[in-house]
Amino acid sequence: MKLGSGVEWSVHACTLLSVLPEGWSLPAEAIAEYHGVPPAYMAKHLQSLRRAGLVSSTRGAAGGYRLRHPPASISLWDIVVAIEGRAPAFRCTEIRQNGPCGARPDACRAPCGVAASFYRAEQAYRDSLRSVSLVDMVTAAAEQSDAEKRSAIAQWLQKTAVRSEA
Amino acid sequence: MKLGSGVEWSVHACTLLSVLPEGWSLPAEAIAEYHGVPPAYMAKHLQSLRRAGLVSSTRGAAGGYRLRHPPASISLWDIVVAIEGRAPAFRCTEIRQNGPCGARPDACRAPCGVAASFYRAEQAYRDSLRSVSLVDMVTAAAEQSDAEKRSAIAQWLQKTAVRSEA
Repeated sequence: MKLGSGVEWSVHACTLLSVLPEGWSLPAEAIAEYHGVPPAYMAKHLQSLRRAGLVSSTRGAAGGYRLRHPPASISLWDIVVAIEGRAPAFRCTEIRQNGPCGARPDACRAPCGVAASFYRAEQAYRDSLRSVSLVDMVTAAAEQSDAEKRSAIAQWLQKTAVRSEA
Repeated sequence: MKLGSGVEWSVHACTLLSVLPEGWSLPAEAIAEYHGVPPAYMAKHLQSLRRAGLVSSTRGAAGGYRLRHPPASISLWDIVVAIEGRAPAFRCTEIRQNGPCGARPDACRAPCGVAASFYRAEQAYRDSLRSVSLVDMVTAAAEQSDAEKRSAIAQWLQKTAVRSEA
């Protein structure tokens, strides 16, 4: 079971967008540069985030991405869904209906104990990620940064962010 | 994110082995037949379960698989680990160290907020699966079976199970 690296990149990208001043954006190339990842893949994930309504983009020379909602209202689960979709990790193939003692379809309206247990575990996973917002990511990153790093980020943003249309 | 179907098959297979009388085994082919799944894949998963110490096998004409521990002491998480391994679904690539504002390696001894949040969610997932044993699976299956199905299973086992060496 593996979560694609797009989730990692996207959470970091949204964390960076969380500290942009109101009315400013970051070009996709700059977001990729900041994280040292291939621009084409980063752009693809930013488009997924846009389609999911988590970020908005402005076009043109001064175009870029910004969050569409306050960081406190975007959870890590929202980002997982934007990048990986909502399909459960456990895909029940109803093998209880197979074989010489298979259950009749009309006896299988409720999930079996196996599927129900995996769905419950995935609910616990989702609930955990839903309880964490981008504000928590910004706070954690700030706690792990020294003054030098915070100043480097501020300078980079000043140089790189673009003024968006309203 | 997707859990391979081997986990589904293996939990069902171990649930079936849970109701075998002491001293009896089921051949791999019979386990595959019961679940209506390809024998070669089922055999591969049974070997993984054996390597993980969850089942044992006896060779020869009367050879087969049985649980190595009481069903109450085997959790769904044990079976996931046997089939999929212990690698976390979230694979941190330390992108916080990349780019123009990258953190120094010595400032990255603790996981970042992003990785820590995903590890916490996976812990919640694990804890949930650890709390469910094969006894719960047998109970759930019995609750969803009518007398006809229970009798069909008993007859099939009587015909198919083999007496194992001690």
